[in-house]
Amino acid sequence: QQKSLGGRGLSCKGVYRALTIREKYMRLAYQRFPLTTSQYLRDIEGEPFKPEHSVQPVFTSPPKEGEDPFNTKFLPENLSWVARMKDGVIYVYKDAAEADQHKPIENMPGPHYETFIDDMNFLIALIAQGPTKTYSHRRLKFLMSKFNVHEMLNEMEEMKELKLNPHRDFYNCRKVDTHIHAAACMNQKHLLRFIKKSYRVDADRVVQNIKGKDVTMKELFANLNLHPYDLTVDSLDVHAGRQTFQRFDKFNAKYNPVGASELRDLYMKTENHIDGEYFARIIKEVASDLEDARYQYAEPRLSIYGCNPNEWTKLSGWFNKHRVFSPQLKWMIQVPRIYDIFRGRNFVPHFGKMLENIFMPIFQATIEPHANPELSIFLKHVTGFDSVDDESKHSGHMFCTKSPKPEEWDIVKNPSYSYYIYYMYANITMINQLRKARGMNTFQFRPHCGEAGAVTHLLASFMTADNISHGLNLKKSPVLQYLYFLAQIPIAMSPLSNNSLFLEYAKNPVLEFLKKGLIVSLSTDDPMQFHYTKVRPNWVPEPLMEEYAIAAQVFKLSTCDMCEISRNSVLQSGLSNEEKTHFLGADYLKEGPEGNDIRKTNVAQIRMAYRYETLCYELNLIKEGLKTD
Amino acid sequence: QQKSLGGRGLSCKGVYRALTIREKYMRLAYQRFPLTTSQYLRDIEGEPFKPEHSVQPVFTSPPKEGEDPFNTKFLPENLSWVARMKDGVIYVYKDAAEADQHKPIENMPGPHYETFIDDMNFLIALIAQGPTKTYSHRRLKFLMSKFNVHEMLNEMEEMKELKLNPHRDFYNCRKVDTHIHAAACMNQKHLLRFIKKSYRVDADRVVQNIKGKDVTMKELFANLNLHPYDLTVDSLDVHAGRQTFQRFDKFNAKYNPVGASELRDLYMKTENHIDGEYFARIIKEVASDLEDARYQYAEPRLSIYGCNPNEWTKLSGWFNKHRVFSPQLKWMIQVPRIYDIFRGRNFVPHFGKMLENIFMPIFQATIEPHANPELSIFLKHVTGFDSVDDESKHSGHMFCTKSPKPEEWDIVKNPSYSYYIYYMYANITMINQLRKARGMNTFQFRPHCGEAGAVTHLLASFMTADNISHGLNLKKSPVLQYLYFLAQIPIAMSPLSNNSLFLEYAKNPVLEFLKKGLIVSLSTDDPMQFHYTKVRPNWVPEPLMEEYAIAAQVFKLSTCDMCEISRNSVLQSGLSNEEKTHFLGADYLKEGPEGNDIRKTNVAQIRMAYRYETLCYELNLIKEGLKTD
Repeated sequence: QQKSLGGRGLSCKGVYRALTIREKYMRLAYQRFPLTTSQYLRDIEGEPFKPEHSVQPVFTSPPKEGEDPFNTKFLPENLSWVARMKDGVIYVYKDAAEADQHKPIENMPGPHYETFIDDMNFLIALIAQGPTKTYSHRRLKFLMSKFNVHEMLNEMEEMKELKLNPHRDFYNCRKVDTHIHAAACMNQKHLLRFIKKSYRVDADRVVQNIKGKDVTMKELFANLNLHPYDLTVDSLDVHAGRQTFQRFDKFNAKYNPVGASELRDLYMKTENHIDGEYFARIIKEVASDLEDARYQYAEPRLSIYGCNPNEWTKLSGWFNKHRVFSPQLKWMIQVPRIYDIFRGRNFVPHFGKMLENIFMPIFQATIEPHANPELSIFLKHVTGFDSVDDESKHSGHMFCTKSPKPEEWDIVKNPSYSYYIYYMYANITMINQLRKARGMNTFQFRPHCGEAGAVTHLLASFMTADNISHGLNLKKSPVLQYLYFLAQIPIAMSPLSNNSLFLEYAKNPVLEFLKKGLIVSLSTDDPMQFHYTKVRPNWVPEPLMEEYAIAAQVFKLSTCDMCEISRNSVLQSGLSNEEKTHFLGADYLKEGPEGNDIRKTNVAQIRMAYRYETLCYELNLIKEGLKTD
Repeated sequence: QQKSLGGRGLSCKGVYRALTIREKYMRLAYQRFPLTTSQYLRDIEGEPFKPEHSVQPVFTSPPKEGEDPFNTKFLPENLSWVARMKDGVIYVYKDAAEADQHKPIENMPGPHYETFIDDMNFLIALIAQGPTKTYSHRRLKFLMSKFNVHEMLNEMEEMKELKLNPHRDFYNCRKVDTHIHAAACMNQKHLLRFIKKSYRVDADRVVQNIKGKDVTMKELFANLNLHPYDLTVDSLDVHAGRQTFQRFDKFNAKYNPVGASELRDLYMKTENHIDGEYFARIIKEVASDLEDARYQYAEPRLSIYGCNPNEWTKLSGWFNKHRVFSPQLKWMIQVPRIYDIFRGRNFVPHFGKMLENIFMPIFQATIEPHANPELSIFLKHVTGFDSVDDESKHSGHMFCTKSPKPEEWDIVKNPSYSYYIYYMYANITMINQLRKARGMNTFQFRPHCGEAGAVTHLLASFMTADNISHGLNLKKSPVLQYLYFLAQIPIAMSPLSNNSLFLEYAKNPVLEFLKKGLIVSLSTDDPMQFHYTKVRPNWVPEPLMEEYAIAAQVFKLSTCDMCEISRNSVLQSGLSNEEKTHFLGADYLKEGPEGNDIRKTNVAQIRMAYRYETLCYELNLIKEGLKTD
């Protein structure tokens, strides 16, 4: 008893500090932290709570009637500032002279390296601390039982609220596919149809040039000795089956139609002999289907690898040339964690150069928009960064004060997940401060995290990410799971993807997380590999509905549950303030029931009140716990 | 050992006789029995196998180009024969005189009542017999392990076959929704849309007449004090939720939109003030969506209650008036087992009258087609009968030689499931013999069976039904499950329906049954209550695809599994010989690999061979077993 009391005090102190750590790093990078939690933290510190201290990311509003999203006229003027990388992080200076003395422009502070490591080590210790594990475990168990009771008491009341709510039901409340890769955003049937169609029209078109020799599409397929007319989804073979379970490598191979990388290059790349024309067209077909569906949005990821600095020029060139814009799509950049491969092939001399290739062009375009018009336009429509790769690949390296700086990291070995995450976060922080200062949109950090591998991944994201994709491994760490709840960190979950790769559907924690009050949304990840429902001229694209329908069926979700998940997806997404106001209501930034407009969200106020009171109760418990021993 | 051997001989004798019993009753009613199994039975008897002894049901072919499915010109001539009911079964006589002496026309024999009861009692004893239970249990366990081994050895080979199979994949192989109720064949969103549309157009139309007073649609909705404009799927409230689990009563209530039976009458009935116009239009919208989808067919059930003899006149009048015909739809008649309710309200004097109301009109239309043109046309497009209601409702009555004859059954109590089944089977048998003699299409008996209640339901259907819906309770009787395998009895399963009513999705035996070699198909049962995917102008109807997709995801079905299930659904269905030939191949009636045309079915020959050899192995084991002790 005494001990558990002592334990409680200790745990609450730890949890309190953990929350202040996240709050600090979120604010620094213009990422979100719940007002309610901040309020309790100030309360604990005896400080007055100043809402104006809370920050919000800035996203570009959809173009007004008749406005051209590609118009470069209104880009901010060029500045003479200088951007330069130091210790893996890019800083901005008034001019070269100040750069030489490393005197960055004030009020653009980056994260402090040593402090970050300290904070990280503190959290590593905390999540392993016995009493805190017990405390968190008990709280989570309580949250679960509490929701079950809420459900038994109020399910019917919630349903009644929804029945009395005119016009709005699950079908016409807005949903965002918060995690989807552009290269797999079409489903297998759609891709098959597109390949056949392109062959009927373009058989004699030159689509490749191998060592100076032009290759037509007809020849390309002839070399693969197959004829598109005979292709089926079976021979296309892009769908994940039982074979991919626990085999991320096999899964990656599924990106190659008919196992041929040539076809992946031709149809799913922005850079190829036809300037990514087919890929652009496929994405625009998906977008126009979403426009028909009206209530669905998606956040496709495009890749930047960091092999060389003009990747951005090419990608933004593709985006502008083919005018790949749709109000239904919010773009994200995914950076694969494959330095080791590039280094092995001598594409980059060290990790610092990779970071520079990834981030420097953004700084330049932000400082001199008119010198980089296409990139500047593209960046307006980019809402965040993702960090991707197989998390189960273990890296021997351990991120600490002694870790070599990126410019010194010239070995072929891959740095650890945390090392990647820190340097992406640090550079995004600097970019956001610069762009905020210039009145431009900012970027969120939304890495893949906790799909597999060590729980420390989830710790790194707790410190740096606005929200994450997957989060399955929160099951393995009660402390982190409780912290993700208290900080209300959104988690884009993809149970169908997990089902093919890492975890059987019925075992997916999505229901458990939802009940406990974690902020989950549903996403498709890779419709091409995971989903069945069809798309074709005047058929609706249903992958996201398939995701919702299966979860609803298997987990017996109520309408209120499904609408709460939809609402979460809009909040988590990079949709602009205008759009969120339109889809969720004018007060969507407020927390608790007053932030909910049931006429738009179809989420019962009883549910909102339950969530709000539950969060406050837990935060208050920590406040009280600090007073014990 | 000795004992188990002795047990084996005993079990094999029992199983052998059980199969001969089913074979006899199938042949009598022009229903199907597998050639392979017949062959082994003859073999055991030392009789020559005569394929010509095997019978097939007769279904109406789709109308030829330009042919009118409602054309009455080519109906067979009227005859002067007489149909009359005796002991609950309708017999056909040359004339009234012969009828008075009960001299039915030869070569139209019905089932023999006492023999049927004997056969039934034998089977009741068999499924309770210890050694036979052990034997069947072991064989089923073996079948399961054997399939798992087959999968590990041949999964890749099967996939390779499918990859090499041009044009055909899961999406374009034919699927039949083998179990769907017409009154719920639209999904919730479709119904909602239709109601709103009808109100916009027909608000002032008279849709009811209450005690001589006309009621317009506007008034109807006003009386319910709701306005269609405000309706949502939530307020419509036809979707099954957690509340319906184990509550068939609550589920039935879901048939009433907004809980108002008035709306059910207006939109989902063939008989109402507007002659079922709306219901006809909804069904035709579903049909035209299926026609767009091209590869999907459905077998909707319409109700005949047996309250009075002119139900048929009204139903066929509705069918002809609104020309409710589509090549995608094969009609079935469902008969609810609710005699007790009708008797309680004095609608019928005894059970015999109910049977007469159900079946006599068919006999008359079959004898005098031109006297009943509309019914005769409708019957051309009807392929079978279903027996429906909550199986978990227990009836005290036990079907035996002492049971009162239907004409004597005048108490309010409901007869047992078996009693219902026997008399439906007996009358269907007589009709089929009459119609076969007249060169008309025959009817299959396809009752709901084994969704809940006693396992004896599955026993009754084993004796009488061509195929069944649900079959969940086969889990509870190894002997019956093994017999359903040996007799290859098709089972239309609806895991999503079960999930809402009787059994959680992950616990559904559909995968287990498929692996063991039972003939399962997937069906939707009631899209209105169970399915999410949407239908609207130029969106595809996806309920059946939702059924397949979820099964594929949760049970990790391979493409070959899914195509095998699709093939099963076509075989099980009432599609005509022409259509089956077109969809499955010219040899579809042959069993084993030679009966499969992979170019049409996309089912691997390796799979077909495995199924065939496995069945033969089990049948041979019984043959050998008969020689022991």
